[in-house]
Amino acid sequence: MISRDDCLALDGADELGPLRAEFTLDDALIYLDGNSLGPVSQSARHRVRETLDEEWARGLVRGWGEGWMAAPTRVGDRIARLIGAHPGEVVAADTLTIALAKLIGGALDLRPERHVVLTDLANFHSDIYIVRAVATRAGRPVTVKAIERHTLEDGLNDDVALVMLTHVDYRTGEMLDMAAITDAVHDAGALMLWDLAHSTGAVPVDVTGTDVDFAAGCGYKYLNGGPGAPAFMYVRSSWQGVLENPLPGWLGHARPFDFELDYEPAAGMQAFVTSSPSIIALASLEGALEVFERTTMAQVRAKSLALTDLFIALIEERLGGLFDVVTPRDHGRRASQVALRHDDAYAIIQSLIDRNVIGDFRAPDICRFGFTPLYLRYVDVYDAVEHLSRVMRSESYLDPRFSVRKSVT
Amino acid sequence: MISRDDCLALDGADELGPLRAEFTLDDALIYLDGNSLGPVSQSARHRVRETLDEEWARGLVRGWGEGWMAAPTRVGDRIARLIGAHPGEVVAADTLTIALAKLIGGALDLRPERHVVLTDLANFHSDIYIVRAVATRAGRPVTVKAIERHTLEDGLNDDVALVMLTHVDYRTGEMLDMAAITDAVHDAGALMLWDLAHSTGAVPVDVTGTDVDFAAGCGYKYLNGGPGAPAFMYVRSSWQGVLENPLPGWLGHARPFDFELDYEPAAGMQAFVTSSPSIIALASLEGALEVFERTTMAQVRAKSLALTDLFIALIEERLGGLFDVVTPRDHGRRASQVALRHDDAYAIIQSLIDRNVIGDFRAPDICRFGFTPLYLRYVDVYDAVEHLSRVMRSESYLDPRFSVRKSVT
Repeated sequence: MISRDDCLALDGADELGPLRAEFTLDDALIYLDGNSLGPVSQSARHRVRETLDEEWARGLVRGWGEGWMAAPTRVGDRIARLIGAHPGEVVAADTLTIALAKLIGGALDLRPERHVVLTDLANFHSDIYIVRAVATRAGRPVTVKAIERHTLEDGLNDDVALVMLTHVDYRTGEMLDMAAITDAVHDAGALMLWDLAHSTGAVPVDVTGTDVDFAAGCGYKYLNGGPGAPAFMYVRSSWQGVLENPLPGWLGHARPFDFELDYEPAAGMQAFVTSSPSIIALASLEGALEVFERTTMAQVRAKSLALTDLFIALIEERLGGLFDVVTPRDHGRRASQVALRHDDAYAIIQSLIDRNVIGDFRAPDICRFGFTPLYLRYVDVYDAVEHLSRVMRSESYLDPRFSVRKSVT
Repeated sequence: MISRDDCLALDGADELGPLRAEFTLDDALIYLDGNSLGPVSQSARHRVRETLDEEWARGLVRGWGEGWMAAPTRVGDRIARLIGAHPGEVVAADTLTIALAKLIGGALDLRPERHVVLTDLANFHSDIYIVRAVATRAGRPVTVKAIERHTLEDGLNDDVALVMLTHVDYRTGEMLDMAAITDAVHDAGALMLWDLAHSTGAVPVDVTGTDVDFAAGCGYKYLNGGPGAPAFMYVRSSWQGVLENPLPGWLGHARPFDFELDYEPAAGMQAFVTSSPSIIALASLEGALEVFERTTMAQVRAKSLALTDLFIALIEERLGGLFDVVTPRDHGRRASQVALRHDDAYAIIQSLIDRNVIGDFRAPDICRFGFTPLYLRYVDVYDAVEHLSRVMRSESYLDPRFSVRKSVT
């Protein structure tokens, strides 16, 4: 049996333990939803305050002549290191769906003789909305095929222009084999776009080593950039200057202050910035990324697996049979969350929230728990399972107030 | 001759005078660039702090179940009042160019039998970039005609699907006749989209009274929402549910937490929200808009005209003949800025900035000065002209250090 003292001992030996102090977290709360929204860090707060009170208040419009113009690429470079990209291959701007629209639209222009986009039926729903929407405006008939994930390789043929997948399944936490899939896509002559929403800052990603063409992700989950934080776009350097931004704007022009009537894209990822992005939102994300400077993705990954291993072991030990553990046991296929299936998933999550344990519900029957190594303790995992045991033993989730569906969980 | 004491007397009688205290502004600075980036207000700072320190820090992901989900439409409703729109007709999200892309793309679908978009050669350059980019992806051949403004009515015919114009010329400060142009466009069976970047919060706009179909604007100029603040979109209520968002996303779905595979737009302007917008950026804009609750657009307009009248009179009195005043004298055609043409415009602006008078240069030969009634004093106008007189008399602008073009002014 794993004891609470065992967990406290693990925390005592945890190299990442001190990083928790970088975040503002109520100790009465067990926060297992950093995969939905990461918490605020001291450095994010500091950078936002500095932007408001110094750069904007004192510098006013002159801020654009100082650091603001470079903020999207500067923040992009910080993210690049977390996904195995080179400096100059990532830019932070827009929201994830707009970022995907730019990359999908541009990618379709690169394979004009092909007319199919492949994606995964289990992909995040809004990824499917945007790929369908962009396909209807590709300038030629393009078909989106959303297929069962295991049939992907069968779907690859000479018609496929682009494959767009999310690296980590938002429901199950299953991590796909980026290297093998990207290779297969390339063998079929198609391009590969990865959505890294549930990967960046959570699991090691190597876009360079796996030869990914394009990727995008969001800043508000494991990167802790704040609610609705800017997204990011990755374009492999060999595609830069080739891939066009289908939503061009002022800040992506080669000479924005010449106010030229014809668009000429700036060099590098700057071309993927459209209008001025929110500098305050970028400041929060930039500050949040400072915490990652104090660790490595290898350390993050090791602790993430230890936390999810611990959670699964405790669930099996104490609640074996009550839940279906949907997340793969295989480390190579597991990201940084654990999903438990139960018919009463919604009410169970509400009952846990009522006990200050924050996870989330994903329709129709998933209790989803995110494990974020920068601020989570082993003892938090222990205590979360203790709360879940009490919820299940007492059947408190059957209380009618927990089954009333609210619009947001 | 207008004296400095005359200006101090005007300030003493100014009903809007007390609003200056709502902003953080260095008294040693004369800020005539609020048409590029408005200054920070106490209420913007307060709302950002509240969002970071309370809503995000304590509420964490639960913020989405509280006020965050409604932030785009709530902020939109505040902007609606400034442009003569009804509640529910405006949403704040994205950046201006992305907002325009949504409205242009949607509008083209509403006139499938027509194949021309008309715009103005003097339109802001990035408006022209985006209308061209969207036209190439309309699903049918669409031609963008950028024409001389005075030939607009000649260009209207049965081929025209959409006319897209900016209400206030960013260089000259000329304001177009929204009512007459919109009428002419409708008489030709076309749709009208106005870019209100230099209008919103600066001049009275009545999108309802002038029967405008669609409009967009930005939050960082006269609205003082912060660098790169969210943009807004206006869709007349009669078009809602008809106009489609060509960049659909999670937050625009009718039931976002049902995670449905097929997109079904939410009712009203929520459908024009794509992914989660930055809540911190929206908080800054929302706070900034509080200042407008303490005045009316009629008061703002009266003081704006008085400030620009004063500036023009002082320029003529003291620097007559040195500059070409490009901005219309006619109040009906003048917005809230004054543009002076001079061959050495760039160096003159740099020399003024060196004296703590912030205006901006717009290529090739425009000195541009914005007059923002919420925080500008009559004496600031007097002092700005005094500085400009000294720059011109001493020819300090001929100093080589002022003629070296920097990438941003």
